[in-house]
Amino acid sequence: MSKQVWKGSALLAPVPPALVTCGSGEAANVLTVAWAGLVNTRPPRLSISVRPERHSHPLICESGEFVVNLPTEKLVRAVDWCGVKSGRDVDKFAVMHLTKLEASAVGCPILGESPVNLECRVFQRIPLGSHDLFLADIVAIDVDEALLDGSGRLCLEKAGLLAYAHGEYYSLGRRLGTFGYTVRRRKNSTRR
Amino acid sequence: MSKQVWKGSALLAPVPPALVTCGSGEAANVLTVAWAGLVNTRPPRLSISVRPERHSHPLICESGEFVVNLPTEKLVRAVDWCGVKSGRDVDKFAVMHLTKLEASAVGCPILGESPVNLECRVFQRIPLGSHDLFLADIVAIDVDEALLDGSGRLCLEKAGLLAYAHGEYYSLGRRLGTFGYTVRRRKNSTRR
Repeated sequence: MSKQVWKGSALLAPVPPALVTCGSGEAANVLTVAWAGLVNTRPPRLSISVRPERHSHPLICESGEFVVNLPTEKLVRAVDWCGVKSGRDVDKFAVMHLTKLEASAVGCPILGESPVNLECRVFQRIPLGSHDLFLADIVAIDVDEALLDGSGRLCLEKAGLLAYAHGEYYSLGRRLGTFGYTVRRRKNSTRR
Repeated sequence: MSKQVWKGSALLAPVPPALVTCGSGEAANVLTVAWAGLVNTRPPRLSISVRPERHSHPLICESGEFVVNLPTEKLVRAVDWCGVKSGRDVDKFAVMHLTKLEASAVGCPILGESPVNLECRVFQRIPLGSHDLFLADIVAIDVDEALLDGSGRLCLEKAGLLAYAHGEYYSLGRRLGTFGYTVRRRKNSTRR
């Protein structure tokens, strides 16, 4: 293939267009954050990046807490709308019919409609330019029981997760393999 | 829906199972990094997390450079295999028939088979536990010309990008919407 060289831009894809809840009580808000990623396995940690001018930025700074609610195909309208509207102007939960439920470890709500909620506590904020990076511990997870099989295993493939790539929302498509599948049939070579 | 509360774990999904190239010349290596994400728009910045015991970790520390090569469905075997094998033991480019091409702005190679290569320069390393977080500027991008339309626009939906969720590799599925689609029909309400 022949390549063109472009200047740098934010073109990593796909990324998770997460519905992030923050604040508490009547002041709670929900916004869409696609600049999110896992950063550490033990302890489990993730990052989100939020523009300082967003209504949610001071809410996250003040409480040091937020929840990453995994998005699904059914939530795509809410995902898009909560990314372009501001909690300064409107109650996004009410307009999008999103249910605030009590979290187990943080003071901000989790979204009832999201099948997996990652409750997070910030341990570092790093200003990077247009966005501030919030590094956070994942302190608890809320999982929809409908996604658990008989042995209690999480069948996340049933969730209908949503991906974001270059300005477009996608469903997940075909399952192409499981981590380690290329070495699993050979004896003594599986590494994790 | 009814929810179970679990202890925290690294359950954000989907994430990009990126093929990261690093090092240079004969010492170049490629590894798979799913703990990757965008962290800033202006200037364009991303992060990857790498375990200190990985062969690539000192290569990235020494040069301060790496390339995030976007994975495609055709590369799923290489993505999996390069995540479980070590460059200490084997030339992963040779075994997986991956082509090293010269980057434009960094000293490590880009992968010819990947349609989009993000050339990155590290500006901060943060040890987080099992992984070190590398924060990096995206200093140049190499784009497959076959993905450009007549007006030079990148049609990333043609690339067949790969996603990773809870230990499984997926293709991207149906396109469900474009950023801002929920407000675009209403006058004077589009915000970016």
